[in-house]
Amino acid sequence: MSNQVAVFRKESFNAAHRLFNPAWDEATNAKVFGKCALPNYHGHNYELVVKVTGVPDPETGYVMDMKELSDLVQELIVERFDHRNLNLDTVEFRNLNPTAENIAVVCWQLLRPRIPAVLDLQVRLYETPRNYVEYPA
Amino acid sequence: MSNQVAVFRKESFNAAHRLFNPAWDEATNAKVFGKCALPNYHGHNYELVVKVTGVPDPETGYVMDMKELSDLVQELIVERFDHRNLNLDTVEFRNLNPTAENIAVVCWQLLRPRIPAVLDLQVRLYETPRNYVEYPA
Amino acid sequence: MSNQVAVFRKESFNAAHRLFNPAWDEATNAKVFGKCALPNYHGHNYELVVKVTGVPDPETGYVMDMKELSDLVQELIVERFDHRNLNLDTVEFRNLNPTAENIAVVCWQLLRPRIPAVLDLQVRLYETPRNYVEYPA
Amino acid sequence: MSNQVAVFRKESFNAAHRLFNPAWDEATNAKVFGKCALPNYHGHNYELVVKVTGVPDPETGYVMDMKELSDLVQELIVERFDHRNLNLDTVEFRNLNPTAENIAVVCWQLLRPRIPAVLDLQVRLYETPRNYVEYPA
Amino acid sequence: MSNQVAVFRKESFNAAHRLFNPAWDEATNAKVFGKCALPNYHGHNYELVVKVTGVPDPETGYVMDMKELSDLVQELIVERFDHRNLNLDTVEFRNLNPTAENIAVVCWQLLRPRIPAVLDLQVRLYETPRNYVEYPA
Amino acid sequence: MSNQVAVFRKESFNAAHRLFNPAWDEATNAKVFGKCALPNYHGHNYELVVKVTGVPDPETGYVMDMKELSDLVQELIVERFDHRNLNLDTVEFRNLNPTAENIAVVCWQLLRPRIPAVLDLQVRLYETPRNYVEYPA
Repeated sequence: MSNQVAVFRKESFNAAHRLFNPAWDEATNAKVFGKCALPNYHGHNYELVVKVTGVPDPETGYVMDMKELSDLVQELIVERFDHRNLNLDTVEFRNLNPTAENIAVVCWQLLRPRIPAVLDLQVRLYETPRNYVEYPA
Repeated sequence: MSNQVAVFRKESFNAAHRLFNPAWDEATNAKVFGKCALPNYHGHNYELVVKVTGVPDPETGYVMDMKELSDLVQELIVERFDHRNLNLDTVEFRNLNPTAENIAVVCWQLLRPRIPAVLDLQVRLYETPRNYVEYPA
Repeated sequence: MSNQVAVFRKESFNAAHRLFNPAWDEATNAKVFGKCALPNYHGHNYELVVKVTGVPDPETGYVMDMKELSDLVQELIVERFDHRNLNLDTVEFRNLNPTAENIAVVCWQLLRPRIPAVLDLQVRLYETPRNYVEYPA
Repeated sequence: MSNQVAVFRKESFNAAHRLFNPAWDEATNAKVFGKCALPNYHGHNYELVVKVTGVPDPETGYVMDMKELSDLVQELIVERFDHRNLNLDTVEFRNLNPTAENIAVVCWQLLRPRIPAVLDLQVRLYETPRNYVEYPA
Repeated sequence: MSNQVAVFRKESFNAAHRLFNPAWDEATNAKVFGKCALPNYHGHNYELVVKVTGVPDPETGYVMDMKELSDLVQELIVERFDHRNLNLDTVEFRNLNPTAENIAVVCWQLLRPRIPAVLDLQVRLYETPRNYVEYPA
Repeated sequence: MSNQVAVFRKESFNAAHRLFNPAWDEATNAKVFGKCALPNYHGHNYELVVKVTGVPDPETGYVMDMKELSDLVQELIVERFDHRNLNLDTVEFRNLNPTAENIAVVCWQLLRPRIPAVLDLQVRLYETPRNYVEYPA
């Protein structure tokens, strides 16, 4: 029996974005991305659930202190993306289409170096309560 | 005893906005509106709950057909604001700061003429799950 | 300043129903009630929120014991309607169209005599998370 | 590191059903299925979460367009089961007991041929907020 | 037509409590309060929704800045009650039974002097997702 | 293709706890556990989701009767922990720090012998809506 436990912490950020491939003309963007390609942006209340998996420390009973995990997500993700325009205000999405899939991968890449290497990391990103993604799958 | 019943219908739209008073300089806007005044917009998954109050029709048992109510909110609110930038893309907020309070009042004003006059109307607008407003109070 | 407090208790029941006016022909029923008139019934996870308002008893700090309120809703509503077909299995809706509006009024009428007269009673009934009603309004 | 991402889309349908094994007598059905075997049906607000896993297309940033995924679930699941009696109105459950487990397997079987073969598919079905199932496990 | 708008802000705190009337013997407390009177305390994730009603300021579009409202609830309620034992650690409930009703009244009394007098104040307190109270009613 | 299905059942209990390592002095406990180490306890509305995986019985269509699963969780977990102080009232946490991780492992250990051996078992425990854990991971 594995003695691994996963801990999850949910944080939120509100951001604007539009979906757009600069290699395509406007008509192709409109055809592929529909309303999501409208030029003046729309936005979402993003919810990010960070899952960290490992063996609890016998002295603390923690896989990882959720307060530390929360602080890390605040520092690395929320301060960067909250109340921002993902396309215009961030280096991460200057040349990367801010689909939910890509945002989740970027969040994972930003967090991974700061989570102890012995622990596994997965993120789930809610774009709306009905649309969400998980990385790695 | 009143024989009035209220019916509620919830719809959603995703939009970008920023809070800004053009009569003020940037520093005052930043002081008053904080991150909400950042120039490139952010966004929300808005949820609009429309409440209609009246006496159920004895033949149908309906105060108002919720399908009709839903269609009305789709036509008058969701098609107008969904995937739009409230500041740039709408006539309603060209000269009106798109705070949750003002958006709720505008939604009420758009719906009121199309709801039968004998029925009362109130709207609740969720900007986030933790911030919401109601009009009229 | 009023010293009245309202207490709310939520209970659930799962039931089948169809909307139908026997004074009308099938075509009129289909036109007015759409899919809700389909002959073999559909169903919902109904959620009933009971609101009781009064002055807290200084000895207990309770407006009404929520355990008693929960037991009352279980006895009078859940045992009667849970896992039932509202049209076929209940006397209440044998001759009354089981719209959300009418179900809410019936729930209120079943509960009212058993709630102390000094306390106000209101019910909210969720037919779905996006459609709900309140009585009295 | 896997470069697979999972995308999830949630849709809803409201249906009536009863649990019943025609090979058994009524007493055995009542003993095994309890209130779920009552003869006149009950119902639920079913919520179906469809999970599709694959490598995002570098041109779109999509594993699969969630609008297409939503349309597919609407066409194949919601139009078939919404406002229907699963036992009486569907070919799928004419000879199959409509437990949450069986409904989930049927939803997967209906969707699988229409999802690109290179993508994995899993479904989660909520019968109530407290009872749900996942297939394949 | 009223031009009043209500704004709502939700905050959370986690606390322990027990229900107990020191004027009664243990048997009476056990009879009246059941499991809630157990001597070593239990606890809840309390959610407090603060509702403030008034006319939006035409310059800001705000009834009250929700950030200020959030800070006020943090300062006056969350810092006082979060991760505390209501019976042992607070002056407010040293001689007052910490029922949901009484906690809501105390939260209102703590907030009222710090909300501008021209604005109305109401609080809703969730003890669990199924049990909640509102003051004033 | 696997023919395994997972069934999930959610139950709740409200309990008090504090985090504390008796091998450490008070200052170390305060440093490591922060507000969670405060001496007079705080509490939570815990939500436990039990996941049981196996092949549905062809006669019932059930992996496991969710009513039986619910009864089992009530008997083994809710009756033991609901309205209790985990540190003071339970043998399980007399010498084990009641972190979410440890509570989840204990719930799994209590349930495992009573779930048929052919079925897999996993538990998810919500301490708050934003903090939760899963075992085994």
